[in-house]
Amino acid sequence: MRRLEGETTPALVLDRVTLERNCRRMIERCRALGVRLRPHMKTLKAIDAARLAIDPSHGGIAVATLNEAEYFAAQGIEDIQYAVCIAPDKLDRAAAILRLASRFSFFLDSVETARRVAAYTRSHAVSFRVWLEVDSGEHRTGFSADDPQMLEAAKVLLSAGVVLEGVATHGGHSYRCRTLECIAAVAESERITLLEAAANLRRAGIEVRSLSAGSTPTVVHARTYEGITEVRPGVYMAGDLFQHAIGVVTSDAIALTVLATVISHKRSRNQIVIDAGGLALSKDRSTAVSPVDRGYGWVLDLDGRPSFGDLVVTDVHQEHGEIVAGDPALFERLPIGAKVRVAPNHACMTAAMYESYLVVAGSRLIGESWARTNGWSAFSIA
Amino acid sequence: MRRLEGETTPALVLDRVTLERNCRRMIERCRALGVRLRPHMKTLKAIDAARLAIDPSHGGIAVATLNEAEYFAAQGIEDIQYAVCIAPDKLDRAAAILRLASRFSFFLDSVETARRVAAYTRSHAVSFRVWLEVDSGEHRTGFSADDPQMLEAAKVLLSAGVVLEGVATHGGHSYRCRTLECIAAVAESERITLLEAAANLRRAGIEVRSLSAGSTPTVVHARTYEGITEVRPGVYMAGDLFQHAIGVVTSDAIALTVLATVISHKRSRNQIVIDAGGLALSKDRSTAVSPVDRGYGWVLDLDGRPSFGDLVVTDVHQEHGEIVAGDPALFERLPIGAKVRVAPNHACMTAAMYESYLVVAGSRLIGESWARTNGWSAFSIA
Repeated sequence: MRRLEGETTPALVLDRVTLERNCRRMIERCRALGVRLRPHMKTLKAIDAARLAIDPSHGGIAVATLNEAEYFAAQGIEDIQYAVCIAPDKLDRAAAILRLASRFSFFLDSVETARRVAAYTRSHAVSFRVWLEVDSGEHRTGFSADDPQMLEAAKVLLSAGVVLEGVATHGGHSYRCRTLECIAAVAESERITLLEAAANLRRAGIEVRSLSAGSTPTVVHARTYEGITEVRPGVYMAGDLFQHAIGVVTSDAIALTVLATVISHKRSRNQIVIDAGGLALSKDRSTAVSPVDRGYGWVLDLDGRPSFGDLVVTDVHQEHGEIVAGDPALFERLPIGAKVRVAPNHACMTAAMYESYLVVAGSRLIGESWARTNGWSAFSIA
Repeated sequence: MRRLEGETTPALVLDRVTLERNCRRMIERCRALGVRLRPHMKTLKAIDAARLAIDPSHGGIAVATLNEAEYFAAQGIEDIQYAVCIAPDKLDRAAAILRLASRFSFFLDSVETARRVAAYTRSHAVSFRVWLEVDSGEHRTGFSADDPQMLEAAKVLLSAGVVLEGVATHGGHSYRCRTLECIAAVAESERITLLEAAANLRRAGIEVRSLSAGSTPTVVHARTYEGITEVRPGVYMAGDLFQHAIGVVTSDAIALTVLATVISHKRSRNQIVIDAGGLALSKDRSTAVSPVDRGYGWVLDLDGRPSFGDLVVTDVHQEHGEIVAGDPALFERLPIGAKVRVAPNHACMTAAMYESYLVVAGSRLIGESWARTNGWSAFSIA
């Protein structure tokens, strides 16, 4: 039997038991809220994870790159929402995806892009599906809910026969919250903004079928999503230290860790060095501004348990992670060659450096590793 | 003819003219210093780049992962130095690399690892080549130059027939410097430390053939490397904003940029959004503590020129980069669909997200794209 001890490091570990529980809980949570779940695959980017995450009452997923869309379309998923404003010169790729995934859709937030989509639709006889992105306070992308340009974009699209899926927003400003009340207020801003945008469109005689909101924090802490039809959280599947720090997931919901090996002891500096550094863990320091600063990651034992207390990776170089060993006994517990698992600050950034997951239950490897897709180039169907 | 305008984004762009100049200059610099250059491939991780970077008087390279070693060994490079303390359970991989690359070598900094290497050597009849890593002030890994354990490790290795290549150090604390005098002092600490370590070994009758130092800053600003036999800078090939900020490279030596497309205008917030975010640019903020804070990257035109002045990516989300457009005229110069190039803070972190380079001279694509290797899994020889 393969065991984690025997794997080369650094490697990405995904606990299937935790992942399944996270997926089940989110499906139940959305059922309780009366919204359908469209899991966002930007964190895990793996078909095996998507199969566990998909809500049977929905069937679709969201993605953050066209590479992901191509990958999941090739795996047979029909309903894929590219939840980013499309660049006009990516419409060829979008049309190709639509041939594989009949319900592929994308975002836009400008009349300019709407015109390009309309023109492409006319000249290529495709039937694109579009979401109008609305800004509920994150101030990244999206129309204001009362922007006349949004109505104009909708009309431009409809005149060319584009399918208007509806309106969408991302309460990403929930990540700036430090209280659950704040997160609930962001969820409410998502809801109110989408309802207002939909009302403005409907007042102009435009049908709005779907209202899509959601980030993991807002879906977990929304008081109500009444009027919203679907949500697209993503990082809840993996869990991470930042989600834990802001009160969104429990620490036992962290399914994603990095396996690393101790390669050096520097007793004169009370320092243990592992072979997972800035690339293997990412340099994300999001817990630095949270109630519990976890450095570059929380050091766990091979079973994924916090046997070393609050031990963290204090500094990283490209391929080295430094751990300050508060207790000298740690040099005996973690000799050179010992393996640890490190929970990351931000699962999305960390996972992106790996091609696959070692799938475990505790420290036991179960089955094959799961492949994931990465990057932005066209995914080639093997 | 393919042009950069027609490429999908985000994509990694490497200017071959600049790269060649950077490589040529470093070879000349090392010749002037009287040391041989062993280019470190941890940044570019591409055989085409290695061919330009290799010093004809040396022939070897350094790498930061066994995956890189496997990749370059498969490409026929014989002399590969894995410049990281090896984890004892990676000796099987090391032995396999040695069968392809006869001069493959690695670092260690403990008697424990030396014993494991010696035991493996005896039981597997391989002839490993080892560098004793010495700490010249970075305090990451490495023996102290006067550590009796270093002598003990050397004796353990030699008794098993391991080839002792010599002593090596990394003046990575040069990155904490804010003056060129400071960098020169770090270079001198590398030199003095290696000479002291070599003297201590020689006094015990141990032959020390090679003394290996170097980071890009220290090699560029060392006053002398007398007594040092070789150096292993790496990031100079790509150049980046942090190297520029600390006075190590000129801004026209930045060969690596990210191609991105404008996907949204938010005039109410004076904001332009591109499709390159935290994954495409990396979240490295190393210029934040430098004299010139370049946010998440410096926005250049398609030719790689600073036509937009000091315009930077001010904030990133996973797949979105926000640019505050100081001048409203920028909305006309950078309409939705326009492409820009972004110079990154830290080339090593940014490049790691991509599978290949678009190779250009200015904005003109030349030849094929160059593949690069990534990650830590065993590189399979296709």
